[in-house]
Amino acid sequence: MQLGMIGLGRMGANMVQRLMRAGHDCVVYDTDPATVAELEKEGAIGSTDIADFCAKLSKPRAAWVMVPAAVVDKVIDQLEPHLEPGDMIIDGGNSYYKEDIRHAKRLHAKGIQFVDCGTSGGVFGLERGYCLMIGGDNDAVKHLDPVFAALAPGAGDIERTIGRSGEHDQAELGYLHCGPNGAGHFVKMVHNGIEYALMAAYAEGLNILKHAGVGRADHAVDAETAPLSDPEFYQYEMDLPRIAEVWRRGSVVSSWLLDLTANALAEDPELKAFGGRVSDSGEGRWTSIAAIESGTPAPLLTTALYERFNSQGEAGFANQLLSAMRYQFGGHHEKSEG
Amino acid sequence: MQLGMIGLGRMGANMVQRLMRAGHDCVVYDTDPATVAELEKEGAIGSTDIADFCAKLSKPRAAWVMVPAAVVDKVIDQLEPHLEPGDMIIDGGNSYYKEDIRHAKRLHAKGIQFVDCGTSGGVFGLERGYCLMIGGDNDAVKHLDPVFAALAPGAGDIERTIGRSGEHDQAELGYLHCGPNGAGHFVKMVHNGIEYALMAAYAEGLNILKHAGVGRADHAVDAETAPLSDPEFYQYEMDLPRIAEVWRRGSVVSSWLLDLTANALAEDPELKAFGGRVSDSGEGRWTSIAAIESGTPAPLLTTALYERFNSQGEAGFANQLLSAMRYQFGGHHEKSEG
Amino acid sequence: MQLGMIGLGRMGANMVQRLMRAGHDCVVYDTDPATVAELEKEGAIGSTDIADFCAKLSKPRAAWVMVPAAVVDKVIDQLEPHLEPGDMIIDGGNSYYKEDIRHAKRLHAKGIQFVDCGTSGGVFGLERGYCLMIGGDNDAVKHLDPVFAALAPGAGDIERTIGRSGEHDQAELGYLHCGPNGAGHFVKMVHNGIEYALMAAYAEGLNILKHAGVGRADHAVDAETAPLSDPEFYQYEMDLPRIAEVWRRGSVVSSWLLDLTANALAEDPELKAFGGRVSDSGEGRWTSIAAIESGTPAPLLTTALYERFNSQGEAGFANQLLSAMRYQFGGHHEKSEG
Amino acid sequence: MQLGMIGLGRMGANMVQRLMRAGHDCVVYDTDPATVAELEKEGAIGSTDIADFCAKLSKPRAAWVMVPAAVVDKVIDQLEPHLEPGDMIIDGGNSYYKEDIRHAKRLHAKGIQFVDCGTSGGVFGLERGYCLMIGGDNDAVKHLDPVFAALAPGAGDIERTIGRSGEHDQAELGYLHCGPNGAGHFVKMVHNGIEYALMAAYAEGLNILKHAGVGRADHAVDAETAPLSDPEFYQYEMDLPRIAEVWRRGSVVSSWLLDLTANALAEDPELKAFGGRVSDSGEGRWTSIAAIESGTPAPLLTTALYERFNSQGEAGFANQLLSAMRYQFGGHHEKSEG
Repeated sequence: MQLGMIGLGRMGANMVQRLMRAGHDCVVYDTDPATVAELEKEGAIGSTDIADFCAKLSKPRAAWVMVPAAVVDKVIDQLEPHLEPGDMIIDGGNSYYKEDIRHAKRLHAKGIQFVDCGTSGGVFGLERGYCLMIGGDNDAVKHLDPVFAALAPGAGDIERTIGRSGEHDQAELGYLHCGPNGAGHFVKMVHNGIEYALMAAYAEGLNILKHAGVGRADHAVDAETAPLSDPEFYQYEMDLPRIAEVWRRGSVVSSWLLDLTANALAEDPELKAFGGRVSDSGEGRWTSIAAIESGTPAPLLTTALYERFNSQGEAGFANQLLSAMRYQFGGHHEKSEG
Repeated sequence: MQLGMIGLGRMGANMVQRLMRAGHDCVVYDTDPATVAELEKEGAIGSTDIADFCAKLSKPRAAWVMVPAAVVDKVIDQLEPHLEPGDMIIDGGNSYYKEDIRHAKRLHAKGIQFVDCGTSGGVFGLERGYCLMIGGDNDAVKHLDPVFAALAPGAGDIERTIGRSGEHDQAELGYLHCGPNGAGHFVKMVHNGIEYALMAAYAEGLNILKHAGVGRADHAVDAETAPLSDPEFYQYEMDLPRIAEVWRRGSVVSSWLLDLTANALAEDPELKAFGGRVSDSGEGRWTSIAAIESGTPAPLLTTALYERFNSQGEAGFANQLLSAMRYQFGGHHEKSEG
Repeated sequence: MQLGMIGLGRMGANMVQRLMRAGHDCVVYDTDPATVAELEKEGAIGSTDIADFCAKLSKPRAAWVMVPAAVVDKVIDQLEPHLEPGDMIIDGGNSYYKEDIRHAKRLHAKGIQFVDCGTSGGVFGLERGYCLMIGGDNDAVKHLDPVFAALAPGAGDIERTIGRSGEHDQAELGYLHCGPNGAGHFVKMVHNGIEYALMAAYAEGLNILKHAGVGRADHAVDAETAPLSDPEFYQYEMDLPRIAEVWRRGSVVSSWLLDLTANALAEDPELKAFGGRVSDSGEGRWTSIAAIESGTPAPLLTTALYERFNSQGEAGFANQLLSAMRYQFGGHHEKSEG
Repeated sequence: MQLGMIGLGRMGANMVQRLMRAGHDCVVYDTDPATVAELEKEGAIGSTDIADFCAKLSKPRAAWVMVPAAVVDKVIDQLEPHLEPGDMIIDGGNSYYKEDIRHAKRLHAKGIQFVDCGTSGGVFGLERGYCLMIGGDNDAVKHLDPVFAALAPGAGDIERTIGRSGEHDQAELGYLHCGPNGAGHFVKMVHNGIEYALMAAYAEGLNILKHAGVGRADHAVDAETAPLSDPEFYQYEMDLPRIAEVWRRGSVVSSWLLDLTANALAEDPELKAFGGRVSDSGEGRWTSIAAIESGTPAPLLTTALYERFNSQGEAGFANQLLSAMRYQFGGHHEKSEG
């Protein structure tokens, strides 16, 4: 079938390629004509503006929007006048599911379908396929099924879940219609919330291993650090790249994130290329807000988010205040930075 | 080569089987003669007591101890008088690495080698192999290499870490000599600490999805729960078994623990067989203690542990105290249990 | 001066009494005529409905709304038609500051002033005075100054902050104009967020003391609990009422919440009257949402909130999932509830 | 009565002064003769070494040791040969309660009493008195009662706990015999654990207020920070010194730590003197270890500790790892430091 794609960044461009490889036709648009030209070379139909893009789509039009969350509103505003009842907009980016509900309400009033689609897979998606979490009305989602099927990884050679048999369920093919509008981005949002905590779990654990030698004589003694009571128990020099590697085989903590960790550590055991300022996107924040609003305890997920804020320097004033209080009651002067 | 195994519970018995399948000879002992008899049927050499066990081992003896952490001390006490310089004891259980250091010091004084080996793999280890994290002197660990290699999963068909090439490193075969005594159990300890947090990350995230319908009219309204400010945003009914399934393919959060979660949810989406009292073993506790002693921040790992304590009812008095304070300053009566 | 009070629950009624004691006139209204009648006996001017209430107020009218957050909208709707430019509505309840901004915008369009006032003090406020955190335009806040001054505790005999001298600052009298609309409830919101964490800090600490005897032979041995490695270090029987008492004098952790804790423990050391289901109000939730939205790490504040959710049973499914995973990989059966 | 004091740092010297003001005699020793000389001027009996110190004490000797935890062992070793059965050593510092149990066992074997005494009060103790938490045998603790009573704050004019009447209980005078050896330092340890969390609660809350203006146009826009979805809700400029001040009166969060916070903010609202590297002492660590060993959930207390580790830079490698993983799966380059 035919799909229109707006937004040809790494994600959008790769998805167009994966769709074309599967035999689908793609009409593409981006504010940067160079990216359009590049995909034209590979067989896509380019367009010069939103009007041109819509004109080149066959009806009912299916316009997949793959742009930063902050720009989605604007793109929908631009698309709307060119669309007719029965046409579809798919937001495949990282939008807040509450926005989906708002968008769907507004577009449904004009007979336009809205589908939200959370997309996981990153730079590996072109080859591995994208895990898709979809929200919207049944008809629209069904209509788009060939597109979703082509983007998704498929069943692959992953061992089947115990208890599943017969024909593959949609979920086993790597895409899932999760519910009405917003459900797709809701599930993707929580997926990313989990992702933050999984990442932090490995990071904390490997950091403990990194500290396993703090009792060694050759270890930098830092005047600010409380002296170890039993230095003999912290004499190790752990080989983190090999530890990440060994855990990839037969251990309970094996995962794709661990595979990536092993990649990173194999390339540079000291990770010198990274300063440790960890960005966060909206989805981690929204997951914690959903936990709070729905009354669900999620201390790990939220702490993982806060640790990122901390890495960005946002705990600074709080820490100054702690030092100030210590000075007030104990006359403790802050230790110098060594 | 030949290995002696003391402790024929699920782990020990399966390891003996895996070793024998690989062509190794096993002398086995357990306080329960039935388990000894069963392995004899499969080709192991049984023994009637520790003395008999040691007598049947060829020199240098290699005695693998696979018993609960609390019993290791006693078994070593029983073994010691029957061993000679050059013999080896391997503790393959879940011992505290500080105990390893103590054991090694004591046994080394008599010329007996001590090797600590953290073993991950659970009930799947017989077929998948065990991930082994090993601590001890080079000579002993090298001597035991054929045993470790047979127990470990091997390289398998897992995609190779980027940057690794040529012959497989030991770690790529699923076992690793991590350092001197205690290093094996230290790495295994942290492995389990990470495991707790990974598990909690999935549990918290899926619990948020479980709460995604708290705004629905059909949802049990609970007098004690603060009313939702925006119930329209919590109207979903999420299909958790299929969500776990779809995440197994192409998503960033795919992992072996997610595979198991998918198994559990496919079998019973409501998990009715489980009341929610989550046990913890020593290793989760020791990991957090190591974080504290070494000055490493590990809030997720420790919070995951505390959540287990909480599930065991250990927050009860703290919660009573919170209600009592609320009553004191606000006259708030505790809401009844519905 | 004259103030109108709508909502004569414990807070509203006590505030009217405190105002009248200070010589102010109060017009009062509540949907329950009995509460109106009671305050009439003490000198307040009662009213039968909102229209009557507004008619009895001299201009510019000052109507203080002291009702549950969920009802504020409705009361403002009812008040609005009876008010004129220059009149004032004060929301003294626990409203979300974002609602204040909305209310103010709407009322300002009609020339009506809106003032938000966070009020702390609980059942002790009548005698101790209320700590007031105020948001709104300068003119309205200045006009209401006599009311705020009467409700606030005043400077009292509290030791003066080092560096402050001369005439008392408003803040030293126990009330503060924090900024434009919403600022009052924002500060009160964070105040309550801090309150949750302070409470949890004491509760956790005293719960550790409660567990200081888990190694004693007479202590209930619980099959589900991991055995203590060093029971000799947990042989104490701590006298919590006296410990809370001794900390009230000269210690760094002395506070009003500790005073209340001492009260509660003196009355019943076992706190048998409380089951441990800890409610939460909106403000704790909003504080964490503000932390997340503004990128501020606040792990303790949010964890304190989640602990309350946990006490309400909302971690149940997450815990079932953890047990299910443990069963999957280790064949661990959940321990029975003893 | 007479007391010997070893260790004349700020704490020890002030305690000697408070004791002498109450009419007690003090024999003093410090490795720094200048501090001895200073207290001699005020009436203390100085000594030149440990032998001289012990010789000048009347029997049964009472030697209060007020030195860093790391030095206690050495001082006890030095004292022991000069003491006789019936003599007493009091450790008034910040020792680990497990050390007390060890010290007591060893000294009791020689008939020497050992008393552990946790001491809170900081630089204000001289005037306010010290809150004392005591562990040891009844006889020794009773013998020392006049000393404890003089050091403690006494009942003062603090409002009495509801339910307490008649003669003041020891706890109401500000000191408490908490139980056998170690009990005093155990209670003090938990006291400090609570202290960390109380401090962090204020720091986090005030930091949220500090961030209440992140939506303002004049606020430094930081390329690394996720853009606010609703900047209109973060337009405030909060006056932190006055907010801390107003909370001191009539609010639920009033406390001595808040008084100190008000002092610090009044002196310098920006806390420019402090860089934000927050030290931790052993007691915060031991409290969390006690929580873990006893199976008590204490997520706030431990997170407060970890936040301090974080402020010391110890999360660095974990954060680098998070950035490395993000780069691996998403090609995300770390944002530069602005």
